[in-house]
Amino acid sequence: MIDLRSDTVTKPTDAMRQAMASAEVGDDVYGEDPTIRRLEQLAAEMTGKEAALFVTSGTQGNLVAIAAQVKTGEEVIAEAESHIFYYEAAGVATVAGAQIRQIAGDRGVLQPQAIGRAVRQNDIHQPRTALISIENTHNRAGGTVTPVNVLREIQTVARAAGAKVHMDGARLFNAAIATGTSTKDIAAAVDTVQFCLSKGLGAPVGSIVAGSQSFIDDARRWRKRLGGGMRQAGILAAAGILALTQMVDRLAEDHMNAQVLALCLANTPGISVDLATVQTNIIIADVAGTGIPVDAFVLRLREEGVLASAFGEAAVRFVTHKDVAKDDVVRAADIVARVAAGR
Amino acid sequence: MIDLRSDTVTKPTDAMRQAMASAEVGDDVYGEDPTIRRLEQLAAEMTGKEAALFVTSGTQGNLVAIAAQVKTGEEVIAEAESHIFYYEAAGVATVAGAQIRQIAGDRGVLQPQAIGRAVRQNDIHQPRTALISIENTHNRAGGTVTPVNVLREIQTVARAAGAKVHMDGARLFNAAIATGTSTKDIAAAVDTVQFCLSKGLGAPVGSIVAGSQSFIDDARRWRKRLGGGMRQAGILAAAGILALTQMVDRLAEDHMNAQVLALCLANTPGISVDLATVQTNIIIADVAGTGIPVDAFVLRLREEGVLASAFGEAAVRFVTHKDVAKDDVVRAADIVARVAAGR
Amino acid sequence: MIDLRSDTVTKPTDAMRQAMASAEVGDDVYGEDPTIRRLEQLAAEMTGKEAALFVTSGTQGNLVAIAAQVKTGEEVIAEAESHIFYYEAAGVATVAGAQIRQIAGDRGVLQPQAIGRAVRQNDIHQPRTALISIENTHNRAGGTVTPVNVLREIQTVARAAGAKVHMDGARLFNAAIATGTSTKDIAAAVDTVQFCLSKGLGAPVGSIVAGSQSFIDDARRWRKRLGGGMRQAGILAAAGILALTQMVDRLAEDHMNAQVLALCLANTPGISVDLATVQTNIIIADVAGTGIPVDAFVLRLREEGVLASAFGEAAVRFVTHKDVAKDDVVRAADIVARVAAGR
Amino acid sequence: MIDLRSDTVTKPTDAMRQAMASAEVGDDVYGEDPTIRRLEQLAAEMTGKEAALFVTSGTQGNLVAIAAQVKTGEEVIAEAESHIFYYEAAGVATVAGAQIRQIAGDRGVLQPQAIGRAVRQNDIHQPRTALISIENTHNRAGGTVTPVNVLREIQTVARAAGAKVHMDGARLFNAAIATGTSTKDIAAAVDTVQFCLSKGLGAPVGSIVAGSQSFIDDARRWRKRLGGGMRQAGILAAAGILALTQMVDRLAEDHMNAQVLALCLANTPGISVDLATVQTNIIIADVAGTGIPVDAFVLRLREEGVLASAFGEAAVRFVTHKDVAKDDVVRAADIVARVAAGR
Ligand SMILES: [Ca+2]
Ligand SMILES: [Ca+2]
Ligand SMILES: [Ca+2]
Ligand SMILES: [Ca+2]
Ligand SMILES: [Ca+2]
Ligand SMILES: [Ca+2]
Repeated sequence: MIDLRSDTVTKPTDAMRQAMASAEVGDDVYGEDPTIRRLEQLAAEMTGKEAALFVTSGTQGNLVAIAAQVKTGEEVIAEAESHIFYYEAAGVATVAGAQIRQIAGDRGVLQPQAIGRAVRQNDIHQPRTALISIENTHNRAGGTVTPVNVLREIQTVARAAGAKVHMDGARLFNAAIATGTSTKDIAAAVDTVQFCLSKGLGAPVGSIVAGSQSFIDDARRWRKRLGGGMRQAGILAAAGILALTQMVDRLAEDHMNAQVLALCLANTPGISVDLATVQTNIIIADVAGTGIPVDAFVLRLREEGVLASAFGEAAVRFVTHKDVAKDDVVRAADIVARVAAGR
Repeated sequence: MIDLRSDTVTKPTDAMRQAMASAEVGDDVYGEDPTIRRLEQLAAEMTGKEAALFVTSGTQGNLVAIAAQVKTGEEVIAEAESHIFYYEAAGVATVAGAQIRQIAGDRGVLQPQAIGRAVRQNDIHQPRTALISIENTHNRAGGTVTPVNVLREIQTVARAAGAKVHMDGARLFNAAIATGTSTKDIAAAVDTVQFCLSKGLGAPVGSIVAGSQSFIDDARRWRKRLGGGMRQAGILAAAGILALTQMVDRLAEDHMNAQVLALCLANTPGISVDLATVQTNIIIADVAGTGIPVDAFVLRLREEGVLASAFGEAAVRFVTHKDVAKDDVVRAADIVARVAAGR
Repeated sequence: MIDLRSDTVTKPTDAMRQAMASAEVGDDVYGEDPTIRRLEQLAAEMTGKEAALFVTSGTQGNLVAIAAQVKTGEEVIAEAESHIFYYEAAGVATVAGAQIRQIAGDRGVLQPQAIGRAVRQNDIHQPRTALISIENTHNRAGGTVTPVNVLREIQTVARAAGAKVHMDGARLFNAAIATGTSTKDIAAAVDTVQFCLSKGLGAPVGSIVAGSQSFIDDARRWRKRLGGGMRQAGILAAAGILALTQMVDRLAEDHMNAQVLALCLANTPGISVDLATVQTNIIIADVAGTGIPVDAFVLRLREEGVLASAFGEAAVRFVTHKDVAKDDVVRAADIVARVAAGR
Repeated sequence: MIDLRSDTVTKPTDAMRQAMASAEVGDDVYGEDPTIRRLEQLAAEMTGKEAALFVTSGTQGNLVAIAAQVKTGEEVIAEAESHIFYYEAAGVATVAGAQIRQIAGDRGVLQPQAIGRAVRQNDIHQPRTALISIENTHNRAGGTVTPVNVLREIQTVARAAGAKVHMDGARLFNAAIATGTSTKDIAAAVDTVQFCLSKGLGAPVGSIVAGSQSFIDDARRWRKRLGGGMRQAGILAAAGILALTQMVDRLAEDHMNAQVLALCLANTPGISVDLATVQTNIIIADVAGTGIPVDAFVLRLREEGVLASAFGEAAVRFVTHKDVAKDDVVRAADIVARVAAGR
């Protein structure tokens, strides 16, 4: 099977398995796990923030970051198809008691002016705009990157509004590699950032949130409240350290593989791909032109040995990652072409 | 002053004042206020629902209706500029713990197909779609009516999705009068409905929610939880009964006055009005063409004796109501023309 | 019927009805109702606070006061049988997302040392202690007063803990009259206070919260979020002003009537009353010694023309108020004696 | 260092490390991690429940179990010093919007009759009693066990009230071993149960919730909402399986060591221990009689090589576990005696 459903399916490397087996551990709820502490320090350095916190998932990272920066009854501005709105089970409303204002971006990229227009007035009918949340890269838009200069404009708008900026950087390193920007430069344009160790970077479990020390203190309380405080979590952190030190640069390969796959798909009759969105490791392919319903399309692919995700009513999502080689991608493209042709 | 800011500014009639002064009252938290009971029974009859509940405001009516029908972690679909999203201080997130999915309507009218596309899949990443909320008439769209046949199509979509339909009918009677439809026929297309006694109908305070008996039982608990349970509330109900029995038909006059004003404004140089939206008692006038910033425009109107509301970056909202006669409206139109001309 | 169930059953006086009928009103959501403004100013003066806000009930007053002073995830210390815990439908958890820590008082009076022991440590497992809530007079304890010196000790404990103090003074004026202390002196010992206009003071609807200006600004937003913002609310405020200016001193009469009733009941075979708790207008009578189940007891009283409230498994609560004269009370005592004797 | 602060400090065994290094994994959010599936099936069998779910901590297990069984605005009855109230950062209020009613148990054991009295009436002032939560063993009471027959009586009371029963069995296996009851028999008396893999059983991370299939479906959604869904979580599950298959019986040893330590401490001048509470692996020792403040006492112990936890104003908590041998315990007792004697 060539599994292109998501980069979450990546499995830990042998080096990660060895590191986990021999990890030095302690009770992290007491702050005594040395491997967790090393990972958090490394993550803080790589984002240029004062402090960082290990959490069990990107969803948890976003949730503690938002809950720590927004009061109940306030509002968060996010892109209309952002992960925090679309795929996080209404956690922001449930846990933080805050409302998400959904505004459409340009290929997933929030426009500073549109944010400016959406900031609320000081009026008792309206929730205060407390946070802007940016998804970079943007999943549902096809892995698109928000350029650093746009981030900085958003930061300016946010400051004028008295709001904070959070980045859902589940695929932050993909954004960094794709644009040749350091994660530190990207993170400098936001107050807080979350990134995942378990997607393209291959760790089995975990994400990081980073920001100021006082933010991390609050985020730690929120993590505890959600039951995300773990005991001998150094086991997982050992893999996370390798994710950050050994797995970042190779994301370029995933991006090249995505280009290859995207071009093949774009040239397949009945399939269209907005190539402008293929900036990292995600391809959204519109299969409406094949006349095959999307669920049937995905099922046929599976029968032929390719796993992909149905994506709305007419599209299929493919994600490249470390456990899929260039050969696999080429083979997958052939299979897609065959299925699209009704063979 | 000709006050066209909102129909909320209407003052109680002399008949209402007399009714309040002589109202028979009891302790409504014990269910013993006879005037409240009469009002609630009348409201149930007029909406064709099993039961009704008096609440202190439209916001509270919407909130108890949503909280009673949605569990924390679920989702409510509403129009992108709907009152429950825009002007209710994030109450749905705060109190019900639910997320509002904002989808754009056509002049405020939610499209059944768009709702269908926004219904969530059964997937642990996604909140369940529990409720569709319709605003009829739609305030920010300019008082537009959702036709009954559209309501019925929405009801069909909702039932297929296992979702309920709530109507924020703060101006339900305006919708009924404008379309010559009975409130009963309109309400039959939704599970629950809220309407206001204090806007066009002129009561000093209060709104109604109506629905099934078991819904009202739950709504009553939610009202208590929010502190909306009142003691000798028959004082207010006495005015509410007159609002429903004496003040409904005269809304036609407000609609005619709105037509007059809208036509005058549409003919004023520098001002444009989407006349298709002027279906009831609200006019949104775009004043960008006058070159006068909207806040300055509203201030100038005030100096000349007309109160209106700034509405976004380029528009002014005018609302007709019982305390503004046709003469006032004509006079207001002249003043607007003068201000628009920079005089 | 002699209705001794609660002082909430009081009906507005003729003077209140006249005042309501002729009240000057405006749109209070725009801050334009002159009668509301007069009431709020009067309430601020009487409590010695910067500002005050009219709300629809004591429950709503407590809820906005707590929500405005406590963040989600924090803790409120309250007496184990306090109204905010017992009778407010879990609103603090639902709306403010905060936990109530219940500690037993002495006849309803929270002990400063016990509060001190219950303050939380700075530890991520524990919610921060954000607020101490005092009920004065204490309903379920039988209308007991928290003496001003105890309030001041609690204030000292709270300040040391970085917590605020709120007073649920639904019957604040009973406490003031019973102890000969001014409401200003009592309120000086707390950050925020809520009191009811609709209980002993006889207004049909409404309560007040008072505190600093910035607190009231926040409370106003919370009131709006709960749908407690009303339009021409001056109707109700007109009665509220009379409640505060004409109805306070006569509470002494209710207290005397309660003494009379309590003594009669204490002398009735089979009934016991803790006379130390009869400090204001509430009497809790233990009827276990009569051998009659409490529900049957209350039913028999009703048949004989006395309304009282079953209170737990063995007690009946009687509340004196302006609509029950001394004669009524004496007659009620006779009826209770008859019922207790099984006649 | 002899670390007796908590059994959370236990480190994974070599066998666990090997199992983690070689664990077969998949993406558990897609339900494809075979090791997680094995663990969950084993846990379901051991508790006799239809299904089970791996969560990151006991706190998260309790939270998803409560949120899945309680609606916002309802009430949970729990012991006054229970972990869910005391140490879970007000998560029940924050996330589930529910109120905890705290009632005192007998040495941590909730009394069925007291629960019965605390069940709420059907009254709009009162939150519905939706859940009884039992902590077994009870941490702050000193590791006390709720006997199965008491559990069954509580179940009867709960059913009569229409409420569910949840067990916070963080140390469920300690209760089972101490009383010679199977976990299945214990779990049969409750609707849902949570137990930890990471305390006495030695796994590095994780807990289990178990119950009906439909409960687990809901709990899984709640886990996702809190960000507790992990990807290649089989790494952790591999250790969890060993915890359940190899580490349960040896808890008897921890209990014996606790007896030894408790007896030594009870015989130490200035220290008192309620031996009736020493039923499993926790000892609460009152050190007031030594005249040494508890924080100083704990600090002195640390200097002498023993770690223990300050517990309130006068007590120190000691917890035995697999990483502390009998010799260590005897040595620790000597050190405590020395410190108590001021040497
Ligand atoms: Ca992975
Ligand atoms: Ca009005
Ligand atoms: Ca909530
Ligand atoms: Ca009254
Ligand atoms: Ca909340
Ligand atoms: Ca452990």
